[in-house]
Amino acid sequence: MNFASDNVSPFCPEILEALTDEGKSNAPAYGSDDISQQLDTAFSKLFGTDVAVIPVATGTAANCISLSALVSPYGGVVCHPEAHINEDESTGVAFFTGGAKLLTMEGPTAKLEADALDQFIAGQVNRGVHSVAPECVAITQATELGTVYTPDEVNAIGDVCKKHGLKLFMDGARFANAVAHLRCHPADITWKAGVDALSFGATKNGAMAVDAIVLFDTSLKARIEQARKRSGHLHSKHRYLATQLLAYVTNDVWLKNAGHANEAAAVLADLLCQHGASLAHRADGNELFVNLDLGLADKLRASGVQFHPWPSLGAHVYRFVAAWNTNIAQVRAINERIS
Amino acid sequence: MNFASDNVSPFCPEILEALTDEGKSNAPAYGSDDISQQLDTAFSKLFGTDVAVIPVATGTAANCISLSALVSPYGGVVCHPEAHINEDESTGVAFFTGGAKLLTMEGPTAKLEADALDQFIAGQVNRGVHSVAPECVAITQATELGTVYTPDEVNAIGDVCKKHGLKLFMDGARFANAVAHLRCHPADITWKAGVDALSFGATKNGAMAVDAIVLFDTSLKARIEQARKRSGHLHSKHRYLATQLLAYVTNDVWLKNAGHANEAAAVLADLLCQHGASLAHRADGNELFVNLDLGLADKLRASGVQFHPWPSLGAHVYRFVAAWNTNIAQVRAINERIS
Amino acid sequence: MNFASDNVSPFCPEILEALTDEGKSNAPAYGSDDISQQLDTAFSKLFGTDVAVIPVATGTAANCISLSALVSPYGGVVCHPEAHINEDESTGVAFFTGGAKLLTMEGPTAKLEADALDQFIAGQVNRGVHSVAPECVAITQATELGTVYTPDEVNAIGDVCKKHGLKLFMDGARFANAVAHLRCHPADITWKAGVDALSFGATKNGAMAVDAIVLFDTSLKARIEQARKRSGHLHSKHRYLATQLLAYVTNDVWLKNAGHANEAAAVLADLLCQHGASLAHRADGNELFVNLDLGLADKLRASGVQFHPWPSLGAHVYRFVAAWNTNIAQVRAINERIS
Amino acid sequence: MNFASDNVSPFCPEILEALTDEGKSNAPAYGSDDISQQLDTAFSKLFGTDVAVIPVATGTAANCISLSALVSPYGGVVCHPEAHINEDESTGVAFFTGGAKLLTMEGPTAKLEADALDQFIAGQVNRGVHSVAPECVAITQATELGTVYTPDEVNAIGDVCKKHGLKLFMDGARFANAVAHLRCHPADITWKAGVDALSFGATKNGAMAVDAIVLFDTSLKARIEQARKRSGHLHSKHRYLATQLLAYVTNDVWLKNAGHANEAAAVLADLLCQHGASLAHRADGNELFVNLDLGLADKLRASGVQFHPWPSLGAHVYRFVAAWNTNIAQVRAINERIS
Repeated sequence: MNFASDNVSPFCPEILEALTDEGKSNAPAYGSDDISQQLDTAFSKLFGTDVAVIPVATGTAANCISLSALVSPYGGVVCHPEAHINEDESTGVAFFTGGAKLLTMEGPTAKLEADALDQFIAGQVNRGVHSVAPECVAITQATELGTVYTPDEVNAIGDVCKKHGLKLFMDGARFANAVAHLRCHPADITWKAGVDALSFGATKNGAMAVDAIVLFDTSLKARIEQARKRSGHLHSKHRYLATQLLAYVTNDVWLKNAGHANEAAAVLADLLCQHGASLAHRADGNELFVNLDLGLADKLRASGVQFHPWPSLGAHVYRFVAAWNTNIAQVRAINERIS
Repeated sequence: MNFASDNVSPFCPEILEALTDEGKSNAPAYGSDDISQQLDTAFSKLFGTDVAVIPVATGTAANCISLSALVSPYGGVVCHPEAHINEDESTGVAFFTGGAKLLTMEGPTAKLEADALDQFIAGQVNRGVHSVAPECVAITQATELGTVYTPDEVNAIGDVCKKHGLKLFMDGARFANAVAHLRCHPADITWKAGVDALSFGATKNGAMAVDAIVLFDTSLKARIEQARKRSGHLHSKHRYLATQLLAYVTNDVWLKNAGHANEAAAVLADLLCQHGASLAHRADGNELFVNLDLGLADKLRASGVQFHPWPSLGAHVYRFVAAWNTNIAQVRAINERIS
Repeated sequence: MNFASDNVSPFCPEILEALTDEGKSNAPAYGSDDISQQLDTAFSKLFGTDVAVIPVATGTAANCISLSALVSPYGGVVCHPEAHINEDESTGVAFFTGGAKLLTMEGPTAKLEADALDQFIAGQVNRGVHSVAPECVAITQATELGTVYTPDEVNAIGDVCKKHGLKLFMDGARFANAVAHLRCHPADITWKAGVDALSFGATKNGAMAVDAIVLFDTSLKARIEQARKRSGHLHSKHRYLATQLLAYVTNDVWLKNAGHANEAAAVLADLLCQHGASLAHRADGNELFVNLDLGLADKLRASGVQFHPWPSLGAHVYRFVAAWNTNIAQVRAINERIS
Repeated sequence: MNFASDNVSPFCPEILEALTDEGKSNAPAYGSDDISQQLDTAFSKLFGTDVAVIPVATGTAANCISLSALVSPYGGVVCHPEAHINEDESTGVAFFTGGAKLLTMEGPTAKLEADALDQFIAGQVNRGVHSVAPECVAITQATELGTVYTPDEVNAIGDVCKKHGLKLFMDGARFANAVAHLRCHPADITWKAGVDALSFGATKNGAMAVDAIVLFDTSLKARIEQARKRSGHLHSKHRYLATQLLAYVTNDVWLKNAGHANEAAAVLADLLCQHGASLAHRADGNELFVNLDLGLADKLRASGVQFHPWPSLGAHVYRFVAAWNTNIAQVRAINERIS
């Protein structure tokens, strides 16, 4: 079984079906088609407020294009060192923003804590034009270490941002896993908590290639669309991005998929712990960070289980990621193979 | 019938089938999968030389990422004013290259002519660091006005580039239509003629969303891959870009689709000319630019034919674009509706 | 005598004296000194309205930093092909603006004409995010070909900008020569005529190295100061930029210098015409573009007169530039040497 | 007395004299003049090897333009958090390099230590195109905290760079103070120790506004000159940059000025320590970081001594900077005022 990442999974049946349907006929290009035109309405309903939705094919594009409208070329983006934008997107943020700088601050399990954030921002030396002033805070939900901010935690961060006049951006590559875990309304951890823009991930959770920029401040739309076009992220057959996205949020496919992945991860966690493993920290979503002794790690590998070491958390820590298509019966069957 | 553009067409059956197959199982991310690993070999065979292939989802990305490796931030890219990079990609070239400038020169039917190009380059005032020196020539094959460079024409341009020490880039958004028209080997209008890098278009001609950067100078690969990642164009489920691309070149699907589109355009041209229209200029591929009197234009529209006016060529000039899925019997049937 | 350019001249005595004085004591850095603090007031008085002044050491910096606050990375700057920003500043505009594109339009003697500008802007194809929309118009006063816009001409251009919602920028590398020629109030060709920002040149006209960004829209100040710092144009010993600038506008040194240069050019023009030369076009300021037969050109050179051919205006056209320090008696003495 | 910074000092007499001389006549622009042409030779002699010298007006320009030729837009620059490029140059490095990222690592008194550097580089997670690979190391000599790298220390860092294939850049805003302290040959802490490019500061140490980019790898010259021009840092009256620089290195003015500043700082240090202060760390050059109790700080201020608190080193730490023009007798006289 492959727990290397959730992006090893294929697309889900609902999305294949929708794409197949949308493969039967012609339609206007660049977002003038009927499907694309439904996105704003569908997502406004989902979030319970007016939003603008700009789909792109990757999470890096969704994150960096969003930030390009939230921060000036002279400003800073506060984030955790583990943040995807800091660790996994090359120099994308500087590229899209025209030079903005990532200002990293620590926090447990890849989460920023509101009080520490407040102090961090207040403690930034202000030397006027010489220094880089924070203009935006970026958090990841669920985090890169598999933990989830509660609505209260996001709210507290939103309050800090308001206090200091900063924008709040959320990288939601695994937003569905967070909502499935929290069982909250999507509004509770986004616009109601002060989030200005969200990368609403779908690729890892059942799509082929689409993440959506969701703007709670719809005035940013025109600028975001310009940034999307000039960076080559406006698809001519835009309807296929929209089709994936619409299928993904129709009938709560996104929550179903994420709930399944979370459950699979929980089943795996139990199983591993029964065999002597321990979690490096709480697993809220579909990612586990687990302490394994070498014997157990070897046994797992020998039985065909794939996963990655995670040395930044310790020499014996490994990451397991479940996905929308992880077969839970097969997860349970690992038990026999390693007993 | 919709002749607004070839990007109103859906994807073709071969690509749907390949995607559907590739939707059944897990596979490594970011290009480590089996399908992605086959691309270099497949395209090297297709072009008859060693090439490196980097798939991206859009033509703008393919063009601009390519140029970012061919020109410095201080240099110029010579192109026709009608070039897609000049007219339809916002400020993408400057963005990806870090500031390179488009230097436009005229030529009939959107084509650069080698002699004029030679003079244009020689005539650029060289004021050292003050002025912008041409570093690259970019041509489009087939052109934005539906014409096709012959192998001799590309060769002559390649020779001019060599003479002046410039790189040669080809925007091949409709490369297939050009090859189908010329019935030449793809090598004859690319590396053998001096082309350093090619945007090999697939989206308009039957794919969902994939164009390939084909590097004849494979030493550019590492830099192109960095530029792709940092601009958000590296897909996590990379196999779905590769799957489209591999299906597209397998069994000559690309040439079959393009040949069909070209033929449909020729049938339409004949039909329109029989009704008093005339071509604004020769139509080599799947795009027609046609002089229509108002009566005929109205009749066509009334019978459900969609197409765009093309005012840059004249007040009564219209563009019609056929695609891989244009129904030729239905094209012929237009005759009755407008007689 | 050296008529190669006005930037071959040294600095003028008033500026040397001021610098020498300011070399006697310590003072706060980065613009907190007394001299720097006087600039806004001095220039507000000079222009008859509240302005913000940001000095930099070069005209390219003044132009490009100004434009970075007037145009987005996705927009276009309309200018004449002869404009310094188009011909002599490498890829500076794209660099500072993050990608904005120069949209060139012709006009006689390097001037944009309001009616033609109106048509040019109206005629720009608007394909939304695909195309580049004009956001700013840039004119040069005096122009690169030595002509000067009248207040009415600038006003008319200002009106066109307002009509289309564009910003108006003026490259005033030789602003003093224009004002000396027009004998108008500086306000008449700037803010009263719709100019948003001006590069107020001093270097060519008697300074060592300082041009000032003059903002009639003072709300741009903070952003301009950020752009200045991060591009390395904020001097630590800022007072020496300010000192040059203040000396330059004190006691109308700027107008005295420019008036002298204009007069010297006029004297030279008369002299050359008496010897059979003819002006390629009217000379309003300190630059002459002159048709010379080879005999006369050779005679001039033989007598130690330096000047440049200007092939873009014709095979026998040459440029002569007078400066604040051109010795008019020596100009007159050329007569004997070439008779 | 003003110890706020060395950039509160004016220019030195030798430079005023040279500028005054160079103000008497015309000369070619943009570096074609006689003085500018002497720079490469003068600095090659100074460094004992062939170098290329490109003067600019500020340290930020010298640093950022240099780095733009040493690192790709996708790469990282390793530096100390206290580095001027990290703390005091806004987002300049990202701007000039097209996106390169600063990778900060700690070290005592603002110095990188070779062993720790080796481990830091080795420890950078290499995730290929996803992560940012170090391409260059940047050190400051003398450091922002007033300490100086010995030749052995620079050599050790140079060796680490060679081992990992990285470039080595030196910010020498106070290079003269370092050389004056070490009494070494300038070669010993630059090219012989592996430095590829140096910002050779003059502004703080007696110039009006000039720092030189000194390239030990002269193949970088053409690119650096393009970067200088397009960023607005090529002065038209280039000779005045060159004049300052040539006067600065003639007759060892640079070492005389720096030696004086270092001595003044040492005298001040002794005096303060006699009054109960203690150095926060060793003072190698012209900057002191001193622990003062409030009484002493108040007394000093009351007696007209200016200096800044330095909270990053502690609540009671203050910075004092001496300059080329600090009057040592007056420094000694402080004693009476605070006794």
